[in-house]
Amino acid sequence: MQRNLFITFEGGEGAGKTSVLKAIGERLKEERIEALLTREPGGIEIAEKIRTIILDPAHTEMHERTEALLYAAARAQHFYEKIVPALEEGKHVLCDRFIDSSLAYQGYAREIGVDDVLSINEFAIGKRLPDVTIFFNIAPERGLARIHATRSDEINRLDAEGLAFHQKVYEGYEEAIRRYPERFKMVNADQALDQVVEEVWGILNPLLG
Amino acid sequence: MQRNLFITFEGGEGAGKTSVLKAIGERLKEERIEALLTREPGGIEIAEKIRTIILDPAHTEMHERTEALLYAAARAQHFYEKIVPALEEGKHVLCDRFIDSSLAYQGYAREIGVDDVLSINEFAIGKRLPDVTIFFNIAPERGLARIHATRSDEINRLDAEGLAFHQKVYEGYEEAIRRYPERFKMVNADQALDQVVEEVWGILNPLLG
Repeated sequence: MQRNLFITFEGGEGAGKTSVLKAIGERLKEERIEALLTREPGGIEIAEKIRTIILDPAHTEMHERTEALLYAAARAQHFYEKIVPALEEGKHVLCDRFIDSSLAYQGYAREIGVDDVLSINEFAIGKRLPDVTIFFNIAPERGLARIHATRSDEINRLDAEGLAFHQKVYEGYEEAIRRYPERFKMVNADQALDQVVEEVWGILNPLLG
Repeated sequence: MQRNLFITFEGGEGAGKTSVLKAIGERLKEERIEALLTREPGGIEIAEKIRTIILDPAHTEMHERTEALLYAAARAQHFYEKIVPALEEGKHVLCDRFIDSSLAYQGYAREIGVDDVLSINEFAIGKRLPDVTIFFNIAPERGLARIHATRSDEINRLDAEGLAFHQKVYEGYEEAIRRYPERFKMVNADQALDQVVEEVWGILNPLLG
């Protein structure tokens, strides 16, 4: 018997993770495969409140270590209140961004240190790492160009930090992939959405069957 | 020349830390020794907001790991926004409870694990541990009895958890003291307040001079 899996989607800005996850959700419904699709803070009240503190533009003096711990705290609550119960009910869980986003963005690109950020995040989730992580591989300049073309009015703070930062995020993901070669599955995200969906489905279908 | 010191006060409930710290503050003023007296969250807006989430009685479903990470996040912000600047200005800093409270209460008594709680707290403060920690030594049953005698109307949640829990907190402090024998200075907290103040002053005066 196939056990149920905890799967995460990772990648830089404009890689198309969220749209692909939505399309994969439709496929799973059609195939009557029980799965929870989520992303932090995922409607979990405590996690939402923590996010409100992180994102409050008045908090310009927030220290980067405070921020990293708050992200880890929100992750812990979303994990134990939403992901773990779904896994225990026998569902697959597909989560849009998880621990590797923290390693790439905070640990590597913001230079807090990949080992340190890994250690607080391992604490947060009791070392229960995802079973499979789909990495949406696209050159940072191509991802950013895609964002600017399709939603120029809603470029968020991270998008606005420019190519140099996103190049570092990409290198951060490369570092995470070096550490967890078995867990990561690479997809070519520099194609049309439905082609990416097919590629992801080609990986997930045999696993989720 | 004497360098300025980062000093913490630790101990269980009813050990008299807070009253003694206040009295020591008066002494320091009389001696014209520049010092910051603080306790988390210490009026730091971000830390106060984090505390509000932790203490909200509606959050009964908060996971213990979320709580530990939130305490560490509030600690980081109070540390970098209040303690570090004071130390950099050449002041001594005396802080009522710090990392050892987390080790004793969360790591040991709540059984999250002393090593794990230490690791997230070391992350929070960039491994900048206190220079000196005064441990207010009093048997848990004596400390609790003192609280019940003097402020029975305002017994907080932790006070209410009973002697077994406070015995574990005490053992948690013993574990912290085993790990950091040079940093800890023990005082007999089972005496009248002014005697405890004299004992603490006898330790601090030569250091702060």
